Amino acid sequence: MLKNYLVTIAYDGTDYHGWQVQPNGITVQQAVQDGIERILGKRENITGCSRTDAGVHANEFCFNMRTEKELNPFRFVGAMNAVLPDDIAVKNCVEVPYDFHARYDCTGKEYVYKIWNSPQRNPFCNGRYLHYKKEIDVDMLNSQAQYFCGTHDFQGFCAAKSSVEDTVRTVEYCTVTRNDEEVIFKIKADGFLYNMVRIAVGTLLEISEGKIEKDSLPQIIDSLDRAKAGRTAPPHGLYLNRVFYGK
Amino acid sequence: MLKNYLVTIAYDGTDYHGWQVQPNGITVQQAVQDGIERILGKRENITGCSRTDAGVHANEFCFNMRTEKELNPFRFVGAMNAVLPDDIAVKNCVEVPYDFHARYDCTGKEYVYKIWNSPQRNPFCNGRYLHYKKEIDVDMLNSQAQYFCGTHDFQGFCAAKSSVEDTVRTVEYCTVTRNDEEVIFKIKADGFLYNMVRIAVGTLLEISEGKIEKDSLPQIIDSLDRAKAGRTAPPHGLYLNRVFYGK
Repeated sequence: MLKNYLVTIAYDGTDYHGWQVQPNGITVQQAVQDGIERILGKRENITGCSRTDAGVHANEFCFNMRTEKELNPFRFVGAMNAVLPDDIAVKNCVEVPYDFHARYDCTGKEYVYKIWNSPQRNPFCNGRYLHYKKEIDVDMLNSQAQYFCGTHDFQGFCAAKSSVEDTVRTVEYCTVTRNDEEVIFKIKADGFLYNMVRIAVGTLLEISEGKIEKDSLPQIIDSLDRAKAGRTAPPHGLYLNRVFYGK
Repeated sequence: MLKNYLVTIAYDGTDYHGWQVQPNGITVQQAVQDGIERILGKRENITGCSRTDAGVHANEFCFNMRTEKELNPFRFVGAMNAVLPDDIAVKNCVEVPYDFHARYDCTGKEYVYKIWNSPQRNPFCNGRYLHYKKEIDVDMLNSQAQYFCGTHDFQGFCAAKSSVEDTVRTVEYCTVTRNDEEVIFKIKADGFLYNMVRIAVGTLLEISEGKIEKDSLPQIIDSLDRAKAGRTAPPHGLYLNRVFYGK
């Protein structure tokens, strides 16, 4: 009888070519499957809750694994942490119904984007923050970010190479806050288009720089035109922060 | 006319064999001298405020540099940051009297030691925190840490291979605090013996584990016996945090 398990991990994506197995570099999925193979003696297929780009991090990422092996979930977590590289940690494992699917059953995700906002470099922020030297008016940007909330067609906030058909998403909240030199962009939606968070951050930064007009986000969203939105912020500031299932 | 400059830097020590130039690996001093050579066209000698071990970090580290070149200190900071690797940042540069010496004139240093105190691994703490899984009673350890304060002969808290003669140091404060899973050990003294902070942390952890008796620190210190103190905590949790000159 096949069983199905939902596994929660966290990873520092610096040294990986994203989640999904691909030919040109080691990915998180591959490293995790290597670990599973060492423990279960079998290379099980696993299904991630989303793809993440090279260099993107996850404070929380979920995948499901169907296997004929009977697992003790608690021991599986310990065993995986003993064999995985230090930049990937297994946080939890629970049995789920056989038809549970980590991607299709996901009802929402929260991303954070971390900015180190200071003229001074911080050697401890390399690969984990976007270093942004110009001043950011956080209250202004936070009010602009509210335009992302609600249900919109986000086609203009989707990388051109994506081929999704339905580009309508519902953003539940979107905030920009400051903690000393750290500026945090946080967004939750029922789903995200390819590069949607990074383009949203890049667009806000261009509003901050005066390159995109204040209060023009509604028109930019309505235009469905990628060229009207701002640049794509680099991957290393981005973290998948929470993954939601059910209500 | 030779000028003398005091330069403040910060660095992630993960990829370095400590500060001081040595034959078996690249050091921070070397990387900084490489940068200076590129900017001034001359490999100037520089004198650090202390040695740090391989893997130890610095939120603040000072060195002085005597040079016949006339510097614009503000431009020097910018130029250095443009050529240095990402894990070293120059924060400040000021001209100082010719006889100023970064080590001899230092009147105090503050170190912090960072512990990630959780049964769960955190991939973002690799190389920057000691991952310590057992529970820590922070109030108890903080009260034990007070025994380090004051003027003592710390010979028992000095690595055997050190050859310093005067092992008396004055600790101004020593605290253990918690911020969620993060436990921070902080200590300021007029000077530190080789591995003194790491042995102090290792000893407190052994008190936490019941391997060393509570309230026995005064006798351990008085014994001057390295064997009576606890283990040497690993280098990657340690940060030189502040360097003091003058009063």
